[in-house]
Amino acid sequence: MMTDYADRLHAAIQKKRTPALVGLDPRLDQLPTEIIEKARNASINEYEMAANAFEEFCKHIIDVVSPLVPAVKPQSAFFEQLGAAGCLALQRVISYARQAGLIVICDAKRGDIGSTALGYAKAYLAGEDPQAAPFAADALTVNPYLGSDTLEPFIETAVQRGAGIYVLVRTSNPGAASFQDHTEQDQKLYQKVAASVEESACQAASNAVGNYGCVGAVVGATYPQELQQLRRAMPHVPLLIPGYGAHGGGAVDVATAFDADGLGAIINSSRGINFAYNAEPYKEQFAPDQWEQAVELATKEMIKDIANNTPAGNLQ
Amino acid sequence: MMTDYADRLHAAIQKKRTPALVGLDPRLDQLPTEIIEKARNASINEYEMAANAFEEFCKHIIDVVSPLVPAVKPQSAFFEQLGAAGCLALQRVISYARQAGLIVICDAKRGDIGSTALGYAKAYLAGEDPQAAPFAADALTVNPYLGSDTLEPFIETAVQRGAGIYVLVRTSNPGAASFQDHTEQDQKLYQKVAASVEESACQAASNAVGNYGCVGAVVGATYPQELQQLRRAMPHVPLLIPGYGAHGGGAVDVATAFDADGLGAIINSSRGINFAYNAEPYKEQFAPDQWEQAVELATKEMIKDIANNTPAGNLQ
Repeated sequence: MMTDYADRLHAAIQKKRTPALVGLDPRLDQLPTEIIEKARNASINEYEMAANAFEEFCKHIIDVVSPLVPAVKPQSAFFEQLGAAGCLALQRVISYARQAGLIVICDAKRGDIGSTALGYAKAYLAGEDPQAAPFAADALTVNPYLGSDTLEPFIETAVQRGAGIYVLVRTSNPGAASFQDHTEQDQKLYQKVAASVEESACQAASNAVGNYGCVGAVVGATYPQELQQLRRAMPHVPLLIPGYGAHGGGAVDVATAFDADGLGAIINSSRGINFAYNAEPYKEQFAPDQWEQAVELATKEMIKDIANNTPAGNLQ
Repeated sequence: MMTDYADRLHAAIQKKRTPALVGLDPRLDQLPTEIIEKARNASINEYEMAANAFEEFCKHIIDVVSPLVPAVKPQSAFFEQLGAAGCLALQRVISYARQAGLIVICDAKRGDIGSTALGYAKAYLAGEDPQAAPFAADALTVNPYLGSDTLEPFIETAVQRGAGIYVLVRTSNPGAASFQDHTEQDQKLYQKVAASVEESACQAASNAVGNYGCVGAVVGATYPQELQQLRRAMPHVPLLIPGYGAHGGGAVDVATAFDADGLGAIINSSRGINFAYNAEPYKEQFAPDQWEQAVELATKEMIKDIANNTPAGNLQ
């Protein structure tokens, strides 16, 4: 019997007692020198070198964080910029993370119509069986601009496979308001998208309060009040909150994303963990060859901050 | 000296005397048997078999259409569903099309914020120099939901490299209205996106009438009147019109997309050309092993229909 995505996610969150999500955002100009050198010796061209380095770097991060957190979120763009060699590295990083027992959310923000959307769903939504898709993620981020009907092939595939999607509802970039705040009769566009996502999540889940569907939402944590409103508007929707750490916000700002049990949301940090060795406050404390220790400490401090300042502190 | 994307595109349109754009949408269940069998003999697993078949199929189409049309549009989703093997096939198909002198528009509908958007731009926007990106396209389709600021890394890369982008403005799927028609003070969301795209195109082009920028728009041809309004709202924006053929519309419906010289728009057909051998009205006329002749005839009839029913008939 297949287990729903939200149930698998929440089991993982409860097991690790934290909703901290570690992003995997490899950037060539910030990788530790030892990783680059090892990759250079084994590669025939620059794309392959960088792809090998990305794979190695992400696998080391997975080794460090897999005992600590329930999930990781590889960012597809960084791999795609290396072409097919990068795509192969992404496949391998996803496989490696799943073998380490992590939930994998592929951040690729796909969206298209009809059979093309189904193509993307089949590419990324493996769900419970890692053999079911080449990029064998548990969940995928998805863009709603083309219309609510274009989310259906993703949702159907997710339901069939025990996978999940996170629909972009509200982003935290400076220009997010330019289209997302377009307002019809006091309803902003992102609120309309949120209502549509809640409806889809209810259809996919049982309708009882506290039950989450396989249809999630990405909600940037720019204003805590806005986050609270969106949490209330989408009671059956698991949230993915980016922007912890590098984008500025701390755990206090994301407290409203959780239900009383500390469930219903995962909080992402990417750069702040990946390149902790190269940034404040860890830079002075760790030499470049101690970068994995910096990853570990940054992850533990994020977990502690979330536990101390949000309902996720109630996780048993 | 680098040549702008719009100038390169229009030179190609004038050389071929048609704005017909052939989509490359390989679907395993519709490929000619001979292609499948050849690929199966050369492959170690199903993904690689399908990737080899897709590559072979698309290269044959390119051989047939490259003397006839200015541009092709590979659909990334179909390749991605085969994982890294499919991504390698996509790279090779793009290279092959460029060597055949075609403009290549990669239909991947990417969108993200800041440095992540830049990652996608670097992955797909090679522009004038095919060595500049691994997926060496001339142009890329882009999703605007995250905000107008998130288009900037794409536009900057496009300007630097003589590449182009096509921003999704109006799509033709049944549920397109669900978010694109959200209306603030009589302005629908897609009209707001159109205004933003026009502004970006003007900044990238010289402002003179009849000059097009590197920022294009995807406009579904559901209603001819809507298309005409969008053409008027975006006088500096090259349009990409999907939906000819398989989606239902004929050339009469897209006539309003062009300027008086027959420039400013390209008209896409994918399935109707790729699988012409397997559909009306060509099915009776060609045996399966004559599928390339069906591609050729369907392309020529599309070109004729556009020439007879739109200002593109004025192309010299």
